[in-house]
Amino acid sequence: MIVIMKLGATSEQINQVVKRIEESDLEVQVNTGEEQVVLGIKGDTRNIQDIAFNSYEGVDKAVRITNTYKLSSREFHPDNTVVDVDGLKIGDGSFITMAGPCSIEGLDQIRETARMAKAGGASVLRGGAFKPRTSPYAFQGLEEEGLKYIRQAADEFDMKVITEVMDEAHIDMVAEYSDILQIGARNMQNYKLLSAVGQTGKPIGLKRGIAGTIDEWLNAAEYIAVSGKSDVIFIERGIRTYETATRNTFDLSAIPLIKKLSHFPIIADPSHGTGVWDLVTPMARASVAAGADGMIVEIHPDPANAWSDGQQSLNEKTYLRMMDEVNVLVKAMEEIKSL
Amino acid sequence: MIVIMKLGATSEQINQVVKRIEESDLEVQVNTGEEQVVLGIKGDTRNIQDIAFNSYEGVDKAVRITNTYKLSSREFHPDNTVVDVDGLKIGDGSFITMAGPCSIEGLDQIRETARMAKAGGASVLRGGAFKPRTSPYAFQGLEEEGLKYIRQAADEFDMKVITEVMDEAHIDMVAEYSDILQIGARNMQNYKLLSAVGQTGKPIGLKRGIAGTIDEWLNAAEYIAVSGKSDVIFIERGIRTYETATRNTFDLSAIPLIKKLSHFPIIADPSHGTGVWDLVTPMARASVAAGADGMIVEIHPDPANAWSDGQQSLNEKTYLRMMDEVNVLVKAMEEIKSL
Amino acid sequence: MIVIMKLGATSEQINQVVKRIEESDLEVQVNTGEEQVVLGIKGDTRNIQDIAFNSYEGVDKAVRITNTYKLSSREFHPDNTVVDVDGLKIGDGSFITMAGPCSIEGLDQIRETARMAKAGGASVLRGGAFKPRTSPYAFQGLEEEGLKYIRQAADEFDMKVITEVMDEAHIDMVAEYSDILQIGARNMQNYKLLSAVGQTGKPIGLKRGIAGTIDEWLNAAEYIAVSGKSDVIFIERGIRTYETATRNTFDLSAIPLIKKLSHFPIIADPSHGTGVWDLVTPMARASVAAGADGMIVEIHPDPANAWSDGQQSLNEKTYLRMMDEVNVLVKAMEEIKSL
Amino acid sequence: MIVIMKLGATSEQINQVVKRIEESDLEVQVNTGEEQVVLGIKGDTRNIQDIAFNSYEGVDKAVRITNTYKLSSREFHPDNTVVDVDGLKIGDGSFITMAGPCSIEGLDQIRETARMAKAGGASVLRGGAFKPRTSPYAFQGLEEEGLKYIRQAADEFDMKVITEVMDEAHIDMVAEYSDILQIGARNMQNYKLLSAVGQTGKPIGLKRGIAGTIDEWLNAAEYIAVSGKSDVIFIERGIRTYETATRNTFDLSAIPLIKKLSHFPIIADPSHGTGVWDLVTPMARASVAAGADGMIVEIHPDPANAWSDGQQSLNEKTYLRMMDEVNVLVKAMEEIKSL
Repeated sequence: MIVIMKLGATSEQINQVVKRIEESDLEVQVNTGEEQVVLGIKGDTRNIQDIAFNSYEGVDKAVRITNTYKLSSREFHPDNTVVDVDGLKIGDGSFITMAGPCSIEGLDQIRETARMAKAGGASVLRGGAFKPRTSPYAFQGLEEEGLKYIRQAADEFDMKVITEVMDEAHIDMVAEYSDILQIGARNMQNYKLLSAVGQTGKPIGLKRGIAGTIDEWLNAAEYIAVSGKSDVIFIERGIRTYETATRNTFDLSAIPLIKKLSHFPIIADPSHGTGVWDLVTPMARASVAAGADGMIVEIHPDPANAWSDGQQSLNEKTYLRMMDEVNVLVKAMEEIKSL
Repeated sequence: MIVIMKLGATSEQINQVVKRIEESDLEVQVNTGEEQVVLGIKGDTRNIQDIAFNSYEGVDKAVRITNTYKLSSREFHPDNTVVDVDGLKIGDGSFITMAGPCSIEGLDQIRETARMAKAGGASVLRGGAFKPRTSPYAFQGLEEEGLKYIRQAADEFDMKVITEVMDEAHIDMVAEYSDILQIGARNMQNYKLLSAVGQTGKPIGLKRGIAGTIDEWLNAAEYIAVSGKSDVIFIERGIRTYETATRNTFDLSAIPLIKKLSHFPIIADPSHGTGVWDLVTPMARASVAAGADGMIVEIHPDPANAWSDGQQSLNEKTYLRMMDEVNVLVKAMEEIKSL
Repeated sequence: MIVIMKLGATSEQINQVVKRIEESDLEVQVNTGEEQVVLGIKGDTRNIQDIAFNSYEGVDKAVRITNTYKLSSREFHPDNTVVDVDGLKIGDGSFITMAGPCSIEGLDQIRETARMAKAGGASVLRGGAFKPRTSPYAFQGLEEEGLKYIRQAADEFDMKVITEVMDEAHIDMVAEYSDILQIGARNMQNYKLLSAVGQTGKPIGLKRGIAGTIDEWLNAAEYIAVSGKSDVIFIERGIRTYETATRNTFDLSAIPLIKKLSHFPIIADPSHGTGVWDLVTPMARASVAAGADGMIVEIHPDPANAWSDGQQSLNEKTYLRMMDEVNVLVKAMEEIKSL
Repeated sequence: MIVIMKLGATSEQINQVVKRIEESDLEVQVNTGEEQVVLGIKGDTRNIQDIAFNSYEGVDKAVRITNTYKLSSREFHPDNTVVDVDGLKIGDGSFITMAGPCSIEGLDQIRETARMAKAGGASVLRGGAFKPRTSPYAFQGLEEEGLKYIRQAADEFDMKVITEVMDEAHIDMVAEYSDILQIGARNMQNYKLLSAVGQTGKPIGLKRGIAGTIDEWLNAAEYIAVSGKSDVIFIERGIRTYETATRNTFDLSAIPLIKKLSHFPIIADPSHGTGVWDLVTPMARASVAAGADGMIVEIHPDPANAWSDGQQSLNEKTYLRMMDEVNVLVKAMEEIKSL
């Protein structure tokens, strides 16, 4: 961290800032130029991130150089982390697909969707049993009954399960049925929940918050990493902007950016990213090409009659076609790696 | 709700939609014009908000006319709700001030801040004991010890307490010490928490989410309202936009808009709304003039040495001056009411 | 400007950066600490704002300390600039009102609106003769005919005129009829137009761009200031965010912020800021309280039949009531100044 | 267009709205249900887009069904428009690359860049002679001298030229040297300029505005289409959001969305879309996979010494590698088309 003093800052003003930093057991290097004084702070500045340097008289600006996260950063851990989901590898260079309905609606529906998902090559079955809904009057999920159904359907088709946990009280229950615990966009900064899931040892699918910055997302991953032994799988699902032609603005640049800043894998969610079923396939293709480690998509045997998110769900035919296209691009990406 | 069919939609396509709506026990009025067919749905359409009408062939657009919230809406409850905080009225036409530090740092600090707050005319003491921090390495709050300190300080100066609860597990503890339970911006859509605090009967200070729409905010209030007997106090604290010259973009239009749409009171938070201490006073004045029922501001005996949010905290002198200015405007607003 | 080198940057890398800066006739102060090297650049760094320091190997970060604007900055010109509109002062501590229709629709309409505007105390008549419309099929304005009408109406009621100029080719024509030239939000970064109007000597009403940052806005004013002798009047009219409950998000914090950073006056546009007629009055009040030098509002004798922007226009009754309220607050602000 | 009346709207209120619509020579279909009255408007509602239906008493909501653009819409023109740039086809299913520096800095620089560009397979040379810069003190371009240089360089390497025109007064000059006229992001809603370039007959590269919606972009294209015989090439270059880790948020979903709504081709600009050179290659790949008709990228023989935008420019080595990767994906996309 660098603290830049105003032109004409007095010695007393400078000393006050230096003293404050030294009280936090950090060393200060005072660079006295002809005009400007610049203070360089050495050591782990995570401890002094709360200091309001701007409130000190004589301070012009404080500039953070290092990040506030560490265990999540590639700097700290240069090699890719390959997440092991009970045998299934995520982040090892392959491209994995998670598919399923928005909500688990019943055993027949989730079994039929699992069959479709598997036929297209998906290895993880998604589906919500606890649904965070804007309105309290909307369908809130089948809860434990739904968890049983998705586990049964996944087992039948030899797939893994990813499902959302919204609440500390339900972690044990969800962990009993699910291989990956998903933290939804609305909970990206629910720090108590992050800390708690981080202690389960299960891989955590961490969705980006609706207005989450890249920096906040990496810090959210840090809460998980610091709390236990769980690995993180980032899920880019679009952010909220002024544009309303799509449900969210799908920030695909986040894929290469997160891969640059962190060692954890990242997958894309073109269903929430666009919110419109006929944009899902092109953005699934783009996700492969951007370098994602996989994707998570919403499919349904009968989207028009889905209990939620029908407008962004693919039916069997459109899903299978998408997977054919994705496979062509996965091969092309392998060719690129060997260039 | 209105469903507009495409030009040339077939009878079969129309019937399919009509059938789906009728299955939800709602009546459909089919308006067959020369070109376009428009379906009007009668009854409580909250039940069919999940239907993906856009996925039906032949449907052009579905337009919601009624809201998805009800107990929070002014339509449902035309008179203002006056929230009673153990004798202190919020929403009765007066302007109340909540003031205090970002974090409770110790007994001396909170007592000294309470003295300042009271001297300026504040009736509620704010201060965080559980702090939601972007980084896990930042100061997280004094927890129960902090709650004891703020209660003691408030009692000494005959003030009420507002403090944040971040976690279902802590509701009882926080409710023991605090008169108002605050839901922070990051938790506006933590629906389990909203439902749980709604059962305490304590007034809930509901901050707007960092990217929360007005509609989502009203629906969040609905989760509280539908869950029990707690009243809601909306707190506008700025939203995230592209502008970085201020910490947030303080959406002051939300004050008259929420008062139009809901019967619950709304207060303004110019400290988080701007994030810069010398913008707080003008925006506090603007909050009065916009018609807020009160405000919540950050003050500190020594902002430069505050453990958090020092850059947006007022010291004793600037706070007292602000309160003098606010009082002049409160009187002007009374004059306006009697015009 | 400060350039922070990476830990371990080589002498050669440092020298390359130093050389580049010195080639631009600026002095460099090399602060060599034990770990980090920080380069301080002295002199007018406006000349080197284009250098891509991040592209140099060994550079961690370049931090701008001074602004890229100068003539518009309060630092350069500490006293308020009072804009003289042919005798009418803007920025002298008074609160002035500009009122009128969105579009000039005919002589009768603008005369009737001028009468209303004057009755409420407005001193400047607004109205568009050239309308920037999203669709080419929407009404584009009466052009010169409209300019004649607004001039005639303003003269009849002893008012000044403000109207938009969209095009360099029309500057002379608009300047013939109008006292203030308005640059619309869509043209805030139309630099050729800014330079051209800056040469007229007429005061320029500079609307903030739909997604204009405070910094870009100040730089746009700089284009005007550097081009001639025209003064600038900033007009805050709301910015585009994710929120759709209002037409724009009215960033009222910009009022005190611009007053802090610049010496030019700033007025508020609560009509475009909210886009909803019944939010205009509370936000007009808030504009006074935030410290604006005035406001510009849309009024119409018959909003339902306005050719454009009817939904945000006040009729005579609501406008006169607003002005009564605004006047009470203007007096309160005077009282505050004398505290 | 549909106008939905409030429950309990009176006959008089309904008749007033009907009368207003009929005055515009459109037919109204009154759908009188038991509770709600819905007015269906037949004919070309582009003429009544300015009516403020919300200002009429008794009106609940007006819903636009048709778009306000026509010549740009795929509905109006179902087949793809293939733009012919003096023999080079854009939009015919091939993927074309435009490459070059941000600014033309001199003849040697642009010739060297043209050589690089051609070596990688680009068919169009980009480079700015008129630069819209935030600060008036930044480099503004070599103007006509620059135009001569880029024409000469392009001719030498048998390439086409694309360059920006910022000003109506310069259209003829720019058109003399350039094959495609580019409208920059800041001018997307400079309607006079759009109308003027539309009359040149040259293809127009229309960048999306910094905060331009998809709908506004299509309407901007309509200004060009309605003005003459120029074709449009949409250029997605990222939009402004709260995220600052990238220069803009690259909205790649716009590629398939524009292709769905319009018949004109669309290309991607991953340089401005990300603003960071090492994110350009993955996003170029993603652009191919999303279905773009081409891309425009910034390259420079020596990015660290570029006069502008050096941080997002590729050097020869990184550019050639990118093109190899892009070519693999172009082939994969051909394979997908034949699936």
